[in-house]
Amino acid sequence: MDSGNTAWLLASAALVCLMIPGIAFFYGGMVGSRRILNMMMMCFGSASLVAILWVLFGYSAAFGNSLGSLGLLGNPVEFFGLEQLLTEDPAAALPGALFAVFQLMFACVTTALVAGAAAGRMKFGAWMVFAGLWAALVYFPVAHWVFAFDNEDGTVVGGWIANMLGAIDFAGGTAVHMNAGVAALALALVLGRSRGWPQVVSRPHNRPLVILGASLLWVGWYGFNAGSALSAGHTAAVVFLNTAVAAAAGLLGWALMERLRLGRSSTLGAASGLIAGLVAITPACGAVSPLGAVAIGAIAGLVCSLAIEWKFRLGYDDSLDVVGVHLVGGIIGTLLIGFFATDAAPNGVSGVFYGGGWSQLGIQAVATVAVLAYSFILTWAIAKALDLVMGLRVPEEHELKGIDLAAHSESAYFNDDEPAELGAPARQ
Amino acid sequence: MDSGNTAWLLASAALVCLMIPGIAFFYGGMVGSRRILNMMMMCFGSASLVAILWVLFGYSAAFGNSLGSLGLLGNPVEFFGLEQLLTEDPAAALPGALFAVFQLMFACVTTALVAGAAAGRMKFGAWMVFAGLWAALVYFPVAHWVFAFDNEDGTVVGGWIANMLGAIDFAGGTAVHMNAGVAALALALVLGRSRGWPQVVSRPHNRPLVILGASLLWVGWYGFNAGSALSAGHTAAVVFLNTAVAAAAGLLGWALMERLRLGRSSTLGAASGLIAGLVAITPACGAVSPLGAVAIGAIAGLVCSLAIEWKFRLGYDDSLDVVGVHLVGGIIGTLLIGFFATDAAPNGVSGVFYGGGWSQLGIQAVATVAVLAYSFILTWAIAKALDLVMGLRVPEEHELKGIDLAAHSESAYFNDDEPAELGAPARQ
Amino acid sequence: MDSGNTAWLLASAALVCLMIPGIAFFYGGMVGSRRILNMMMMCFGSASLVAILWVLFGYSAAFGNSLGSLGLLGNPVEFFGLEQLLTEDPAAALPGALFAVFQLMFACVTTALVAGAAAGRMKFGAWMVFAGLWAALVYFPVAHWVFAFDNEDGTVVGGWIANMLGAIDFAGGTAVHMNAGVAALALALVLGRSRGWPQVVSRPHNRPLVILGASLLWVGWYGFNAGSALSAGHTAAVVFLNTAVAAAAGLLGWALMERLRLGRSSTLGAASGLIAGLVAITPACGAVSPLGAVAIGAIAGLVCSLAIEWKFRLGYDDSLDVVGVHLVGGIIGTLLIGFFATDAAPNGVSGVFYGGGWSQLGIQAVATVAVLAYSFILTWAIAKALDLVMGLRVPEEHELKGIDLAAHSESAYFNDDEPAELGAPARQ
Repeated sequence: MDSGNTAWLLASAALVCLMIPGIAFFYGGMVGSRRILNMMMMCFGSASLVAILWVLFGYSAAFGNSLGSLGLLGNPVEFFGLEQLLTEDPAAALPGALFAVFQLMFACVTTALVAGAAAGRMKFGAWMVFAGLWAALVYFPVAHWVFAFDNEDGTVVGGWIANMLGAIDFAGGTAVHMNAGVAALALALVLGRSRGWPQVVSRPHNRPLVILGASLLWVGWYGFNAGSALSAGHTAAVVFLNTAVAAAAGLLGWALMERLRLGRSSTLGAASGLIAGLVAITPACGAVSPLGAVAIGAIAGLVCSLAIEWKFRLGYDDSLDVVGVHLVGGIIGTLLIGFFATDAAPNGVSGVFYGGGWSQLGIQAVATVAVLAYSFILTWAIAKALDLVMGLRVPEEHELKGIDLAAHSESAYFNDDEPAELGAPARQ
Repeated sequence: MDSGNTAWLLASAALVCLMIPGIAFFYGGMVGSRRILNMMMMCFGSASLVAILWVLFGYSAAFGNSLGSLGLLGNPVEFFGLEQLLTEDPAAALPGALFAVFQLMFACVTTALVAGAAAGRMKFGAWMVFAGLWAALVYFPVAHWVFAFDNEDGTVVGGWIANMLGAIDFAGGTAVHMNAGVAALALALVLGRSRGWPQVVSRPHNRPLVILGASLLWVGWYGFNAGSALSAGHTAAVVFLNTAVAAAAGLLGWALMERLRLGRSSTLGAASGLIAGLVAITPACGAVSPLGAVAIGAIAGLVCSLAIEWKFRLGYDDSLDVVGVHLVGGIIGTLLIGFFATDAAPNGVSGVFYGGGWSQLGIQAVATVAVLAYSFILTWAIAKALDLVMGLRVPEEHELKGIDLAAHSESAYFNDDEPAELGAPARQ
Repeated sequence: MDSGNTAWLLASAALVCLMIPGIAFFYGGMVGSRRILNMMMMCFGSASLVAILWVLFGYSAAFGNSLGSLGLLGNPVEFFGLEQLLTEDPAAALPGALFAVFQLMFACVTTALVAGAAAGRMKFGAWMVFAGLWAALVYFPVAHWVFAFDNEDGTVVGGWIANMLGAIDFAGGTAVHMNAGVAALALALVLGRSRGWPQVVSRPHNRPLVILGASLLWVGWYGFNAGSALSAGHTAAVVFLNTAVAAAAGLLGWALMERLRLGRSSTLGAASGLIAGLVAITPACGAVSPLGAVAIGAIAGLVCSLAIEWKFRLGYDDSLDVVGVHLVGGIIGTLLIGFFATDAAPNGVSGVFYGGGWSQLGIQAVATVAVLAYSFILTWAIAKALDLVMGLRVPEEHELKGIDLAAHSESAYFNDDEPAELGAPARQ
């Protein structure tokens, strides 16, 4: 066991954890001041629930030996309680408990991302049930498909996309971003539009919080991508560099498109472009050169800045643009691997532009379609079932007055200049 | 010297440093908008002072050779100025300067935690003197008791709790959390209640800042706990995993109790539950299984959500619930080791539930009582002495108008819509 | 290649990235609420642009083989696109791509620092062009001078300050802080004062954001300084310790001076003192003892707290005190090495106070003067040229109404209590 690799994965797991508040602030700043707490609570609540499910059966379902060697689902009872990981395995390259908690963070982050589609109008209890079911029925299987590699001696069988199909997805363009993005679309469709939308739309109440969230995501993303190398060496280094420059290119691409179309660049666009670049490089960070990363980031910034407007044309209320940024960005990154991959990069595969032909692009497309179809259908079914069973929407008056007070008995901001209320306990 | 272990401890020290702003924002968001700056200044000011004391004599008092081999106090002049740590010791497992700065962060964090009891009503100068005396007379000795291990050849004698008693406290349930928590209680008692309390209580002016603080604490805590393994290997990995799931369980436990009692879960409760789970797992993170960590976190969340109301019944104004969260959470975690410890975990000790009998629980109880008694008495004496000598409370009008302007000539927020004042220097 | 060293440099690069939002919030909180977005956009926009330039030619200009072996500029086409860094070099101590991205972050941070001088009155497009030119013509060459070391077999020639002169600048007192600080002065002079200044000055609209920014900078700085050791061992440990205590001393020094002069200490002063201490220790962190670090930090805090007032006497509108903190702090740290350096520290050089004579001080002074002169002249020329070609200032009405709306069509904060506007797309 190499202590340097372990050290980097420990640091990476902490960095990925930083992405959870990153999402909470990125989304929280974008909603109104009477909806921010609910949005944050959706992120933290679902992340906490998923962490517990991970210990119970999620890690097993994602990384257990594939049931029937089909590559569809890990054995969900193999590592109940993660008890086995308490025992040190001297032959392992990394501590099993460390890989488990690193991937735990991925499950939490992915689930929290979906929340952006449901801003301000979903019952908190229903969201929590949805999040638990979604992790169990959608994320854990898809993570198995994409992230569970066969072990070398063939005694452990992993997922079909990683092993049978051979798609390249370094850190989760399919399993994380397009998965969360298309789930957000399905949830938004079942949940329905906010009252008055699109005639009345919520405006971001605090853009510095959006920038804070984007910043935490940005820094945490280095752990997400470069930590996925599972070692502290050349591969992690290349991945880190590619991630950094793709983020920069994403920001500049979005800002440029805004400048061309609207005459100015906004901070909201810059933050979104940064994230779009990060999303797109996530699957590709080990497959391309730094210039390839710049190209992918820039294309993501340019395209996603247009894609966020589709919702107004198509009429789905994806309140915080999870579709436009994560779904579209994830597809861009996953497919562009087929063009920009160079065999000089750690993944060692050549795409169309590097003389590798069209085969990798086809493989990437199959993975994309499979994840999109599975996630959309399952998510839609989960949401629809919950809507029938318990109802998803808050009452109209809660939505109009702002969900924070109704769902959590709290307001984000308290104006001290009002006289303090007598006898109000501090924790209200 | 292993570079991987060193790398993780370097990263951990940076993570623990992140906890200082974490406390400042967690507390700062919970107070009123005219008291936040004072609260933040208490955190940063005391942390800075303690860092300097650490260099002068604190590290020596905590980690110097125990005076008279009693295990009560390290030799406070042994490492004056930490000059010795400039010389590389090739035989050491880790650079001495690194261990010193990692533990420096612990001293800063612990002292800053105490500030939450004194929100909005303590003279800043008196707080700084208090903080320096508290670190010197309370934290440094108790850190010696708990964190200073005998070296292998017996030439360096450490603290009595770590070595003679054999209590398990992986990262500071006693030395950090119950120590700070009971000191907060003592300080709150000497300082007295805020004007009008409990009829008039201060309400959190900015809950997103509370969540930001909790998030920084959460991420930093991985360095705190898993860094305390002092190596990048299996132990750090298990500790990291346990820390992550206990935090999640703490959040869910608190949220559940609120839901049951009040019909809804609040973000303030979720953030507090997260911290309560983290506090409780701090001593236990190396001693339990992931399911044990879930149990400890959940119990802490459930119990601490009730404990924060004791102050209204018992009449002490622990403004920001340092007692309810850190004292109670620290006790829960330290004692539950006696039940949930499993010898499969890195500490290798079995508690009651794993067939280990009641002895470890007794040991944990002795450590708990010793730290509580020592810290409460000394803190009370320090506070009382300072109250006599220099006075602890600000004038009533400063408290009512908000301490920020009176103590620091600043207001946290400036409304630009007011006409700019002529000639006001930018730094007022 | 050592995985532990690689792990720490990976973590360090992520920490340094955290400094970019650190600057954005530190500066952003200090300006008015209608100028914060522009300030943040200047930071993120310039950082992104510099990252792309780094890939194209910046890394080459800074770390390529010195043109003509003169030590003035690296060969700017040597590593176009950083393609070469995709190939693993088994003989290298660290992955080339990792060093490249670590130093990429330095370039981004340094450029973003300059923005503080131009708050609220510079065209955004002009700033972006300025930033690109400044990085290319000022930062990349100066980074070559200071950070590019000759390789051991003499086949690669580095910069004149690092190799020929032999100045000590561990992590960038010259190349980063006084470079950015004096550039800020030059830009402020060309750009001219804000309207009404100094009779009317902008007041910080959100001090908690300033503290957040300072906190992110503080934590990130450990990666900046201790990462510059390029290894996870004794040197990084000493550097980390020195950085921590200098920051603390800087905060206390500034707070003390305020207390003596004004009767109270402010959070804005504390945050600035923290940064001043960090700036001053940056060049010196490998050359001094912990007590030396305390002295340097304290001196920086004391002196910089006075230096920020020079702008009122001398009449330049360095809006956010880049000169008073980074220029003055950088000079203090760089020169004090000549006094406080001890050969017991990793740099192994003795200053005046440790019997080393005056020679090192002379060397430090030469490096200081060279960087100051080059950076001031070039920056002034770039700014003047751009002013002639495209104009630097926004129209007066944009400045008075607040630049955010005019330059980015955004307001930082949106008051939900106003009726939502019909049909306004969410991303305006």
